[in-house]
Amino acid sequence: MSNNELMAGVGLSVSGVRLATAAAGIRYKNRKDVCLIELAQGGTAAGVFTKNKFCAAPVHVAKENLAKDPVRYLIINSGNANAGTGDEGMRAARETCRTVAALAGCPMSQVLPFSTGVIGQDLPILPFQQAMPSLMSELSEDGWEDAARTIMTTDTRPKYCSKQIELDGETITITGIAKGSGMIHPNMATMLGYVATDAKIDQKRLQSMLAKGVDPSFNSITVDGDTSTNDACVLLASGASGVEITDTHQEVFQSALNEVLFYLAREIVRDGEGATKLVEIAVEGAKDDAEAKAVAFTVAHSPLCKTAWFASDPNWGRVLAAVGRAPIDHLDIDALKIYLDDVLLVSDGGRAASYTEEQGQSVLNKDAFEIRVIMNEGKGTARVLTCDFSYDYVKINAEYRS
Amino acid sequence: MSNNELMAGVGLSVSGVRLATAAAGIRYKNRKDVCLIELAQGGTAAGVFTKNKFCAAPVHVAKENLAKDPVRYLIINSGNANAGTGDEGMRAARETCRTVAALAGCPMSQVLPFSTGVIGQDLPILPFQQAMPSLMSELSEDGWEDAARTIMTTDTRPKYCSKQIELDGETITITGIAKGSGMIHPNMATMLGYVATDAKIDQKRLQSMLAKGVDPSFNSITVDGDTSTNDACVLLASGASGVEITDTHQEVFQSALNEVLFYLAREIVRDGEGATKLVEIAVEGAKDDAEAKAVAFTVAHSPLCKTAWFASDPNWGRVLAAVGRAPIDHLDIDALKIYLDDVLLVSDGGRAASYTEEQGQSVLNKDAFEIRVIMNEGKGTARVLTCDFSYDYVKINAEYRS
Repeated sequence: MSNNELMAGVGLSVSGVRLATAAAGIRYKNRKDVCLIELAQGGTAAGVFTKNKFCAAPVHVAKENLAKDPVRYLIINSGNANAGTGDEGMRAARETCRTVAALAGCPMSQVLPFSTGVIGQDLPILPFQQAMPSLMSELSEDGWEDAARTIMTTDTRPKYCSKQIELDGETITITGIAKGSGMIHPNMATMLGYVATDAKIDQKRLQSMLAKGVDPSFNSITVDGDTSTNDACVLLASGASGVEITDTHQEVFQSALNEVLFYLAREIVRDGEGATKLVEIAVEGAKDDAEAKAVAFTVAHSPLCKTAWFASDPNWGRVLAAVGRAPIDHLDIDALKIYLDDVLLVSDGGRAASYTEEQGQSVLNKDAFEIRVIMNEGKGTARVLTCDFSYDYVKINAEYRS
Repeated sequence: MSNNELMAGVGLSVSGVRLATAAAGIRYKNRKDVCLIELAQGGTAAGVFTKNKFCAAPVHVAKENLAKDPVRYLIINSGNANAGTGDEGMRAARETCRTVAALAGCPMSQVLPFSTGVIGQDLPILPFQQAMPSLMSELSEDGWEDAARTIMTTDTRPKYCSKQIELDGETITITGIAKGSGMIHPNMATMLGYVATDAKIDQKRLQSMLAKGVDPSFNSITVDGDTSTNDACVLLASGASGVEITDTHQEVFQSALNEVLFYLAREIVRDGEGATKLVEIAVEGAKDDAEAKAVAFTVAHSPLCKTAWFASDPNWGRVLAAVGRAPIDHLDIDALKIYLDDVLLVSDGGRAASYTEEQGQSVLNKDAFEIRVIMNEGKGTARVLTCDFSYDYVKINAEYRS
């Protein structure tokens, strides 16, 4: 029996994918900080990575190895981002792969490294070498929650979920974990996501499905617009269920995958320290999806909008001014409509005649609400998840290094 | 005798330009809120306006009138932005012009209106009508400081300066005023600038010189990236000195004008409430000036950089990560150098070998410092002035409407 609902806070085993975690002492004391994930021989892997040009050493090595050989292992550490570490960082990232490969008996190019934590400190190799024998011997299909906890940095809770679907009379499982506090935490702000399934999916299709899936999820969340140097999301398909995803099943699988990715992304925004509101910006009727996204992100990044949300202030002028400065070609201000949940806030170039402060206040008092921007330029749409800007945002980011 | 230094906090008379101010009671009690500026017949005027597509009614009317007829009057009010006010707002903006024109005996198209203050409230006309007779009768070449105070909203101090240059044995005066707290104050964040000179300058040349002058000044400052709906800067040339600016004098005059504009823009950033640091981002060696500006603004808008400055934290990883996500085509991370004043912070893709925390700390402890980003792509340069993000930024913007 499978449950077709998304299972939040559940980490079902995925046949063909094994995990192990350890407290290697890379930076933290008394907590696990290294996670090893093994993909069965014959499985496929896909990855998407940060577009920040100053990307961390492990990102370079992971991309390089992913392009070269079938993936067998992911080695992930928290506490140290191995970013801004120059040639030494590249050597360290490769060395972590070699440490795994040596025990596993595979080429180092079948291992992808991932790091998250402080920027600019050399990543020590010894902790990996010391932890590797027990990691390798403890690999098991259980332990997704443990893995989710291990990759945390300043996250306040682990983020993981599972989803099952029925295909050809078989139950397919998708389980995912993620970490990140929505870029709120400067040097430890990396978003990492690892999703595994027991479906069989050829590599090209897998990559394309992951790319499609991250667009409305990991690529549609923002806290402050700062893109991390280490962001990565990996999708593993073991094939252990024996069910292959072909054109026939692709849509059903994509939809289930998207649910998992969206849940994880939403949890990241929710867990932004300092965040008191979860705000969804939905844009409709833009010239195209790209312009819709530009409008949504302009509102989502506006410090004036974000501080107003923190104050539970339905300040329509700030939203309208943010839409007005979005980098798009044309905007018909008079045709623009802006809703707060179901309350019409803006029409005819100003505050809607029907609008009352009480209506707006009742929406803004909620912990989560939607701002819907309806334009009159075309069929483009976008949805972006963000949060407010609070005193704690400044506090956390100003005091982080002390 | 003229003093060739920029005179900060000095508002020298400009022959051919008269001013008057009044407390019309538009919103504030017990303070002046309307300013009338008169340009002598035969003078020329140039203007630059906000690019926000949701621009306020007076901006529409000012652009319309500037294009139509020679300018004789500027009528400026604080307390109410007349923005987001629809057709009623357009009527009100035109009515303020008519009120001036009726007493002055000129067409309303020779009057430019400007408003700054809260968004979304109807601008009352009666206060203008009541104040106009005394404004008109009190016009005088003195009173620039008074004018600078009158147009303030949440500014903590008036911003004005003068500059004199000698041309053809005559002294040319340039005097400017501005208001704005660097977009820090959401609904009252408008930047307004008014600069006048007694030089004679034909309208086309005047417009081109103003456009050149605002680029490294008003268009190169930012606090939070939110562009106001009412921003405007106007340059008036009365010609009363009898000295005409032709190709021969243009360079000297442009340079003096730029000094005035830069001083006013710098004062706006300095006066950002909540701002504790004035930070200049200088980018060199970009592919072109546009890419240099894109890099400078990405750093200047990064909430992670801004909160680190507030904490006096020389967090090189945040600056490097911001440069890395700037929307430019190519970036050679290894060739990149970043300086904090004279201290080399970043080279070879990471923290400079010579760098010490003490060096960085000594720069960050200052109230004003420079971050210099040196790229290896071409000859593009940019300078952007910004400030930090403090608790008070959130406080001011979260509590503004209460």
